[in-house]
Amino acid sequence: MYPAIMKKVFAEFLGTAFLVAIVVGSGIMAINLSQDVGVQLLINTISTVFGLYVLITILAPISGAHFNPVVTMVDLIQGKSSTVQFIQYSLAQVLGAITGAALANAMFSYPLLEASTKIRSGGNLYIGEIVATAGLILVINLLVNQKNLVVVPAAVAAWIGSAYFFTSSTSFANPAVTIGRTFSDSFAGIAPECAPKFIAAQVLGALIGLGLTKVLTREK
Amino acid sequence: MYPAIMKKVFAEFLGTAFLVAIVVGSGIMAINLSQDVGVQLLINTISTVFGLYVLITILAPISGAHFNPVVTMVDLIQGKSSTVQFIQYSLAQVLGAITGAALANAMFSYPLLEASTKIRSGGNLYIGEIVATAGLILVINLLVNQKNLVVVPAAVAAWIGSAYFFTSSTSFANPAVTIGRTFSDSFAGIAPECAPKFIAAQVLGALIGLGLTKVLTREK
Amino acid sequence: MYPAIMKKVFAEFLGTAFLVAIVVGSGIMAINLSQDVGVQLLINTISTVFGLYVLITILAPISGAHFNPVVTMVDLIQGKSSTVQFIQYSLAQVLGAITGAALANAMFSYPLLEASTKIRSGGNLYIGEIVATAGLILVINLLVNQKNLVVVPAAVAAWIGSAYFFTSSTSFANPAVTIGRTFSDSFAGIAPECAPKFIAAQVLGALIGLGLTKVLTREK
Amino acid sequence: MYPAIMKKVFAEFLGTAFLVAIVVGSGIMAINLSQDVGVQLLINTISTVFGLYVLITILAPISGAHFNPVVTMVDLIQGKSSTVQFIQYSLAQVLGAITGAALANAMFSYPLLEASTKIRSGGNLYIGEIVATAGLILVINLLVNQKNLVVVPAAVAAWIGSAYFFTSSTSFANPAVTIGRTFSDSFAGIAPECAPKFIAAQVLGALIGLGLTKVLTREK
Repeated sequence: MYPAIMKKVFAEFLGTAFLVAIVVGSGIMAINLSQDVGVQLLINTISTVFGLYVLITILAPISGAHFNPVVTMVDLIQGKSSTVQFIQYSLAQVLGAITGAALANAMFSYPLLEASTKIRSGGNLYIGEIVATAGLILVINLLVNQKNLVVVPAAVAAWIGSAYFFTSSTSFANPAVTIGRTFSDSFAGIAPECAPKFIAAQVLGALIGLGLTKVLTREK
Repeated sequence: MYPAIMKKVFAEFLGTAFLVAIVVGSGIMAINLSQDVGVQLLINTISTVFGLYVLITILAPISGAHFNPVVTMVDLIQGKSSTVQFIQYSLAQVLGAITGAALANAMFSYPLLEASTKIRSGGNLYIGEIVATAGLILVINLLVNQKNLVVVPAAVAAWIGSAYFFTSSTSFANPAVTIGRTFSDSFAGIAPECAPKFIAAQVLGALIGLGLTKVLTREK
Repeated sequence: MYPAIMKKVFAEFLGTAFLVAIVVGSGIMAINLSQDVGVQLLINTISTVFGLYVLITILAPISGAHFNPVVTMVDLIQGKSSTVQFIQYSLAQVLGAITGAALANAMFSYPLLEASTKIRSGGNLYIGEIVATAGLILVINLLVNQKNLVVVPAAVAAWIGSAYFFTSSTSFANPAVTIGRTFSDSFAGIAPECAPKFIAAQVLGALIGLGLTKVLTREK
Repeated sequence: MYPAIMKKVFAEFLGTAFLVAIVVGSGIMAINLSQDVGVQLLINTISTVFGLYVLITILAPISGAHFNPVVTMVDLIQGKSSTVQFIQYSLAQVLGAITGAALANAMFSYPLLEASTKIRSGGNLYIGEIVATAGLILVINLLVNQKNLVVVPAAVAAWIGSAYFFTSSTSFANPAVTIGRTFSDSFAGIAPECAPKFIAAQVLGALIGLGLTKVLTREK
């Protein structure tokens, strides 16, 4: 017997692995190619937008294509996901993220897993993470509420693409990806000691996003 | 009781706030990252195009996703909106725009609200605003006339993305956003004393856009 | 009485005017903003792709959104257009193109109409124009043959965007736009004496594109 | 009599020729325009993404728009293609690729066919090719399995666009294109002696992609 849940969990693992390989790999590529940090972030963003669009498109029919523990957490809060599934998904996402970082490191001949030394901290960056994650949850939940699922891959990819540029933190907006990026000592990395506050801001942002959704969808 | 109008007005407030946070935030990010003004405007444009596409997609089913007083004004002229709604929407849009500028400033550790010192004036820039706004109104109204609403988010975002580059004024095309941008002393700002003529040009452009729509849609 | 043909001809005029305003305007903007010619062409391309997508989307239901005499010519050859309409459309397209160049010049405080001094010649550039135009006609005609009209705006815009970069001539692919661009002494211009050979190459390319379509669509 | 298979084979030839003309042509254009290698790869990528989207859109209804021997190989393994068709398609793809390289060279006044001297080797690059090709096959096969064919052109183009940036090898992911690129002594070229290992990695990646598809689609 092959339980359907295994397919879902594997899809979350694989999708998050590809996603982090894309984020970290294009980050390394960017610094190899250009001295202009603007051009570097353009490369990182375009690669992420295209990749995220594809991954959500192909894996949403299998697992929902969360790739992100706070997305699964919001489902849990709304009773759309069980606690068991939340744990399974989150573990798959985090393991996928670390695997993806290792894959990117392998592609560019870096040590498979090395701790990032890139310090990212400051209240203004946490505001960035809150805004980015609140918007992400708002986008997903409003589209689900509007039964407009076909637009989700393009809309989520576009939101992240926009937020890479307009938030001060360059929009991590995802605890699994944040953990994955602690294993890359590159443009796209984040020092492990900075991760907890980023993740806290993401959780807070997700709750705000859920609150905004409630306000915008409640019936009289 | 929770009147439906409140949801609409809040959607206009929130959408315009995110829009200006995107425009101003990516403008600040751009100057932080690159010395090449072309790369800076690429960053500002891509962020705006992606963000505008998402915001219209998710909020159009709620409020129509105007985010722009001249769009609401054109609805008023055509009898699609009441005077009361025009006032409610415009206030929400302007307050949203200022909130969005403050949010962007907060994300990048700037003073929450500071007056822009960026002078933007000259007859050629006003022509730019007229062209950009006339085109925007033409795009929206033709698509509505053709009952092709599903394309509106992509078409409006693409028009603004194109106009950022081909108009001399970089296409503000929106009085609320113009007011919001007076509160950002950055690449994306506009000095308060320059705003009235920009807004006048936008109103004139909107009327021209409405006239062009009439010519292209009138029946024998 | 207001004959329907006037609406069509006006749509061709207006669409071509906006198209050339976009091509020339973003060309001038590009050289104002960046020293890097690659960045300049990125700006010119992105503005054109977005603008072309929008203009075809909103005007195709009215006039077919040719904006290009060789597109109308191919319709004429296939019996889908009358000689009278070909003449009306072509005149509207050329007048629109010149108007668009003047509008771009006005937006950037250039003389309204000045002859370009940018020499573009050489057999390799003519091959570029042949390839670009053959592909354009192939794209349009295959999609029409496949009754896949909804994709035409994105596909045509994407083809031109690709061809801006991969053809040596940067893909004018349009006699009306070519004539319009003779009136801009900018990055996007072409010296009047170079236009006839570009246009000849475009006509030849269109015929090749039509031939390729025939081969790919003929029935047993 | 005009056998339908000829139309299919010609579509594969033509599509692959255009594809390689785009990849190589935009590669040459890129180095002519900019000193910034990041900007060069942006140009190469955008041109490829747009072109690939268009070519798959217009030719998929005729031949399936493989343009890639490993895509046809995976069809063969799955019993969706005959050995004869695999040979016909592969030959057409390789001849198309060489023709496309020659066309690009002609457009930029290079010798029609010259051997590339660009060395591309190293285990990390082969990992890049494996990842890029596995993802490509996964994308195509999941979408086919989900009967979501309308998304294939955008999804494949987006995958390749993402992989150009995030894989160390810049994602050739196609034996025919690899062979075509041996005939271009440019940014986009690959020295002939490096091609066999790239192709071996692509075949391996395709098999891994097929395996991943099986895992994600198998029924209980």
